[in-house]
Amino acid sequence: MGAEKNVTGAGIFEAPALGEPYLLTPGPLTTAYSVKQAMLRDWGSWDGDFRAMTADLRRRLLALTGDTKGEYDCVPMQGSGSFCVEAMLGSFVPKDGKLLVLANGAYGLRAAQTMQYLGRAYTLIDKGDYLPPRGDEVAAALDADPAITHVIAIHCETSSGILNPVLEIANAVYSRGRKLLVDSMSAFGAVALDVNDIPYEAMVSSANKCIEGVPGFGFVIAKKRELEAAKGNCHSLSLDVYAQWAAMEKTGQWRFTPPTHVVAAFIEALKMHEAEGGVPARGARYEKNRDVMVAGMRGLGFETLLAENWLSPIIVTFFCPADEKFVFNRFYDLMKEKGFIIYPGKLTVVDSFRIGCIGRMDEHVMRRVVEAARQSLAEMGVTDAAPPNAALEERAKLAA
Amino acid sequence: MGAEKNVTGAGIFEAPALGEPYLLTPGPLTTAYSVKQAMLRDWGSWDGDFRAMTADLRRRLLALTGDTKGEYDCVPMQGSGSFCVEAMLGSFVPKDGKLLVLANGAYGLRAAQTMQYLGRAYTLIDKGDYLPPRGDEVAAALDADPAITHVIAIHCETSSGILNPVLEIANAVYSRGRKLLVDSMSAFGAVALDVNDIPYEAMVSSANKCIEGVPGFGFVIAKKRELEAAKGNCHSLSLDVYAQWAAMEKTGQWRFTPPTHVVAAFIEALKMHEAEGGVPARGARYEKNRDVMVAGMRGLGFETLLAENWLSPIIVTFFCPADEKFVFNRFYDLMKEKGFIIYPGKLTVVDSFRIGCIGRMDEHVMRRVVEAARQSLAEMGVTDAAPPNAALEERAKLAA
Repeated sequence: MGAEKNVTGAGIFEAPALGEPYLLTPGPLTTAYSVKQAMLRDWGSWDGDFRAMTADLRRRLLALTGDTKGEYDCVPMQGSGSFCVEAMLGSFVPKDGKLLVLANGAYGLRAAQTMQYLGRAYTLIDKGDYLPPRGDEVAAALDADPAITHVIAIHCETSSGILNPVLEIANAVYSRGRKLLVDSMSAFGAVALDVNDIPYEAMVSSANKCIEGVPGFGFVIAKKRELEAAKGNCHSLSLDVYAQWAAMEKTGQWRFTPPTHVVAAFIEALKMHEAEGGVPARGARYEKNRDVMVAGMRGLGFETLLAENWLSPIIVTFFCPADEKFVFNRFYDLMKEKGFIIYPGKLTVVDSFRIGCIGRMDEHVMRRVVEAARQSLAEMGVTDAAPPNAALEERAKLAA
Repeated sequence: MGAEKNVTGAGIFEAPALGEPYLLTPGPLTTAYSVKQAMLRDWGSWDGDFRAMTADLRRRLLALTGDTKGEYDCVPMQGSGSFCVEAMLGSFVPKDGKLLVLANGAYGLRAAQTMQYLGRAYTLIDKGDYLPPRGDEVAAALDADPAITHVIAIHCETSSGILNPVLEIANAVYSRGRKLLVDSMSAFGAVALDVNDIPYEAMVSSANKCIEGVPGFGFVIAKKRELEAAKGNCHSLSLDVYAQWAAMEKTGQWRFTPPTHVVAAFIEALKMHEAEGGVPARGARYEKNRDVMVAGMRGLGFETLLAENWLSPIIVTFFCPADEKFVFNRFYDLMKEKGFIIYPGKLTVVDSFRIGCIGRMDEHVMRRVVEAARQSLAEMGVTDAAPPNAALEERAKLAA
């Protein structure tokens, strides 16, 4: 086994190993071969070598926040991103608090579902499949309900690929003396979330998103003041962010067995992130990926769900063509044969699919994605990729 | 980077890569190079290829249980082993149930702590550092408290390395119509836990123990009847075993992002486990590791905490020598220099350390461990490794 050394286009990135498709998905995603190679040894989680790795990981993540005052700390947590969201909600929304959930897709709704499990008070603004929660709506909801103590916003909602307006949400929240929690799972590391602009109390992200690590853990970045105040809040031993933080501060170890190999891969990914130029450079590459891919797909007749200003550089939703010869599962298989794994859609009203822009790939790869889509359409006998009218009517809601 | 191809002793196992120490710990442990090599590619967690891997993993684990009637199912869960224990307790002990926790070390006490987080009723038999909970004690506790619905036993308590008498505990539990949950974290795959002998309701173990995978997830094996009955029980969205099972049955996918690379490594580890001869052969190798290592250490003057019949083939506790020239941290560093990472002790009364017998190593490696211990003692100027009298008095309690 080994990485194919024939580099793509500009020669910046090696292709995946032979026979391995690119993952055009919101994570797990295509990672660098060197990231995976970092997993080729075993570490003792109690040993000093691994404790030093944990300290390095925390320091490197904090360096991405813009925190120059030492106000924040980083607490890695085992499990998937949803485990981290639950850990954040259970640890930072006290038992007598009340959460306003801003939902426009699966991840917002999952935060609400988590609160139901916890049996803690929450209220939901559900904007449906993709419409963004706006600052004035948040302000009105907070004015109407003084019991609300916290607000959770989804930074990039990958259900539609929308980049939600967290800055105007944050302004509404803090101007009313409430506290903001951010699920930046699929945006952190590529989209700016600087604490000097958006002074959140806590945010979560995971190893296998824009930092381009492999899946197995996530992390909470929170104000130290909030971490201290979280003692005794959590409903779960495993997901207790305070307890994880306190143990890590005291011993340098994770409380329970960490995914040592995944941690090693993530440190390599963090080094590559830094070498690329940090958040601005990573974001610029993904934006270029998106722009090239979206322009190419539009050239084939495809239409995006979202207008330009709401398109994230993370993942893009396209309407399925109206042509009945277009069958998504067949399109998926044809794209996979050509080396690209795409992602099904999640819209409830019209058929759609998604193509991710994140992972170890560049615009040259995206040009090949478009070419693969062109060939796949031809093999299905689809000559016009235009969506049904219902889709365009749906989209018109966004402009309204 | 690459595995050192100079094989050890009998030539069965390759050594770790150059400069990488063996992990003589209760996991993460030393894994085969081919297990780690299985992580050298990326998978889409939604894709059919990965769904087939998940199905294969579940089938292979169920094949280790002895269940020929299709009564049990396997539910992998993201996170560390402690996440799985919490998932099991939160999902299978109903809100109006009561749990008897059998503790003789850190993992039993952690189960009790988990119940405190859950706010569910439990009672604790705490036998201290290492004394085993016996069947007659369990029977008496169950007779005395009809409210107890479930009992949790720790199969191998790695705090001391004791192999607890789960068969006599199971007999006491089921003769009184109660239900048994087993934490077989560090024993499953090497110590028999056949459902025909011990008809537990649910058990948990993890990827990075006796199956010799890398850390990142664990698994619950439970009666399907109990899985169905667990609907609505769990205090946590992420740790809800019923919800994870129901989603996996319906879609073949994990509910939330799985640690894809760790799963791939685990499947390779399961194949190697089968090729070695399954549970009996894996157990026999570890027993040989233990016997060779314990005999050698005793030859140097060290004494084990436990008598022969309680020694597990997983990890062994040794008393620290009485000689004041013996300093554990120095011993640890000297052993690490020689290529072996050992483990600190957890006894509260006397000083101790632990040496693990599990992982990708055989008796030839264990002879080198003993030789490294001999050299390390010599370098510290310790000529007699005999423990203090207080240690031997402590040990006498076990015989009493």
